[in-house]
Amino acid sequence: MSLVVQKYGGSSVKDVERIKAVAQRVAARQDAGNRMVVVVSAMGDTTDELIDLAKQIAPRPEAREMDMLLSTGELISSALVTMALHELGHKAVALSGPQAGIMTDATFSKAKISAIDPSRLERELDAGKIVIVAGFQGLTDDQDVATLGRGGSDTTAVALAARMRADACEILTDVDGVYTADPRIVPEARKLDTISFEEMLEMAQMGAKVMHPRAVELGQIYDMPITVRSSYVDREGTIIGVENLNKVTGIAHDSDVAKITVVGVPDRPGVAHRLFAPLATAAINVDTIVQNVSHEGKTDISFTINTTDLPSTQKFVEAVSRDLGAERVIANPDMAKVSIVGTGIQNHPGYAARMFGAMSDAGVNIDMISTSEIRITVLIERDRVSDAVRALHKTFELDKA
Amino acid sequence: MSLVVQKYGGSSVKDVERIKAVAQRVAARQDAGNRMVVVVSAMGDTTDELIDLAKQIAPRPEAREMDMLLSTGELISSALVTMALHELGHKAVALSGPQAGIMTDATFSKAKISAIDPSRLERELDAGKIVIVAGFQGLTDDQDVATLGRGGSDTTAVALAARMRADACEILTDVDGVYTADPRIVPEARKLDTISFEEMLEMAQMGAKVMHPRAVELGQIYDMPITVRSSYVDREGTIIGVENLNKVTGIAHDSDVAKITVVGVPDRPGVAHRLFAPLATAAINVDTIVQNVSHEGKTDISFTINTTDLPSTQKFVEAVSRDLGAERVIANPDMAKVSIVGTGIQNHPGYAARMFGAMSDAGVNIDMISTSEIRITVLIERDRVSDAVRALHKTFELDKA
Repeated sequence: MSLVVQKYGGSSVKDVERIKAVAQRVAARQDAGNRMVVVVSAMGDTTDELIDLAKQIAPRPEAREMDMLLSTGELISSALVTMALHELGHKAVALSGPQAGIMTDATFSKAKISAIDPSRLERELDAGKIVIVAGFQGLTDDQDVATLGRGGSDTTAVALAARMRADACEILTDVDGVYTADPRIVPEARKLDTISFEEMLEMAQMGAKVMHPRAVELGQIYDMPITVRSSYVDREGTIIGVENLNKVTGIAHDSDVAKITVVGVPDRPGVAHRLFAPLATAAINVDTIVQNVSHEGKTDISFTINTTDLPSTQKFVEAVSRDLGAERVIANPDMAKVSIVGTGIQNHPGYAARMFGAMSDAGVNIDMISTSEIRITVLIERDRVSDAVRALHKTFELDKA
Repeated sequence: MSLVVQKYGGSSVKDVERIKAVAQRVAARQDAGNRMVVVVSAMGDTTDELIDLAKQIAPRPEAREMDMLLSTGELISSALVTMALHELGHKAVALSGPQAGIMTDATFSKAKISAIDPSRLERELDAGKIVIVAGFQGLTDDQDVATLGRGGSDTTAVALAARMRADACEILTDVDGVYTADPRIVPEARKLDTISFEEMLEMAQMGAKVMHPRAVELGQIYDMPITVRSSYVDREGTIIGVENLNKVTGIAHDSDVAKITVVGVPDRPGVAHRLFAPLATAAINVDTIVQNVSHEGKTDISFTINTTDLPSTQKFVEAVSRDLGAERVIANPDMAKVSIVGTGIQNHPGYAARMFGAMSDAGVNIDMISTSEIRITVLIERDRVSDAVRALHKTFELDKA
């Protein structure tokens, strides 16, 4: 029998009808002869509602209690999906992250899975049960519940699939695969049959929200291919972990970017460390960093972060900047990133020029540039994102198979 | 320093403002020099809403998953109360029932606390923290979450207070103490300063909803006096566990009573056992049982249960009755119990006569009678409850101190 690990996101379990539909799909897969482990997210907007509730009580709630609060959303959906399976006459059991043996570090709200003890999962599967696991959560060494951050249920699913050597890991979501660009922006965008881990990682990190980057990374590390497919219609999705033949695979964009510039920093060793160490400690993800050429012993340092991290980042950066004797800190909350991603990029230096040319033709100003071997990213103003994505999709002929 | 265990019910934490108010009261008690353990129920109608959600998916959801679902309500309120304390600048930590060391048996939905390991609670208290415990829940030996049934947060509080040898155990609720009768029915009802465990147990079992009987029983077993007081106004409540001087202490009533009569049961040994054993296994609480004098080898057996247990009880009883060759099963869902409770009753046989006289004067028909040493209970029709309670309150002069 094959072991299949599936993950259903929040919109797939957003109400009673959807939950029943998920139960039917899962039951059918078991009936077809598979051992089923199913990871579920919180119903619809539950997580956001709990966050709202917490913020009414404490503008900056402590992360430990926030995680205890948010973890309830997945407990609820896992219990309900399990009840729906019982109603269909299937044996099933709901397990919290801790009950599923998922251990994490203690970085509350952005915890990483440190170990998985699948013994209970295997015992329940051996008893013929479908196991429904509450995603997004695990247990720290101090027996506290920690959450894996947004998109953490993807991570739960891929980590379980890898640990249990599953035959398939499927992410079921409200899109039916990975597209060459966001179809809401580019109607001609095509669904990819396959994409390599490296490309998907770049796409995810650069804002393609179909999967959490950490989950893709786990798939890559453990060589666990991941299928992204629709939770509503039964059609082929995109297999992540298999190369495709396109030179440029897709256009990613991220509209939640803020830029911070520290102006007039004394240019001496250790400055960057003092600036970025507290952000790393606070688990704030700093993206592109650019340091200008020094003039008269002073320089400017710019970097980008997610807009949700802007208030805490400003607090840290302004404190350090005063200590360093910097002139001032400028924050721009209205930026965006647009990227071209593809394994072909590493061997074809002409892509950067074509990308910048397309931006120029579209009248989009480039604020910062960053590259990896298989990606070129430009920072632009948020209100030009759609124009930029459409121009790049056309330039690289992604509408053509 | 004194150790105070408090419990706040669902209406005391039903919204953001109430949660902040609870945090302020708790913080003030800590500031006054007490070590504080605070048990909280789910916010307002959360539990009922979760039950509704489950019933939309499965009319009779399995108890294990139901408990997983329902336990989230208390996790949410404990996290939020803790955040409110942080916001007031107090050190505090939220603990789930399992984290608070509460172990239970595996009777899901009606579990009993089997043991408490207070080591983490004590560690957090030693660190100067207020500990907010999610009530109503504990962990089974199989590492599953089990709930203690309705009113289970009272049980959590009393069990913790007893185990930790607390100096005070306070149940804070939306009434300001135990009354001689329900003040909504009898406006002249008086708040009692004290009531013995035995009397409170009879009152609670007979429908006075101020405290869960299991919690009173625990207080009695461990000789842990319990104060019931208002969570809104700062005034003296009622101390449970201290005798009072009244001969009749109060009138209790319970309007959620159903009566089942099995007609024409062959009168032979083992019949009662076969009838009631499955109900005990299903943890259905059977109250008064009456068996009529036998005629021609057949008898009638009547008993009362809570109306919520009626559907499952009927299912069991009808199956057994067929096997036994009984003539038929009659169910009346619209009954109520009214009781007089007081330690004086055991030495004064005249109370029963006075009670029945009052019922007769009020034109209320008595359907069944049951007694304990300190209680006399009559089963009547539900729509006569208010008349009966008022008549008894007046007859026994409970409006006079």
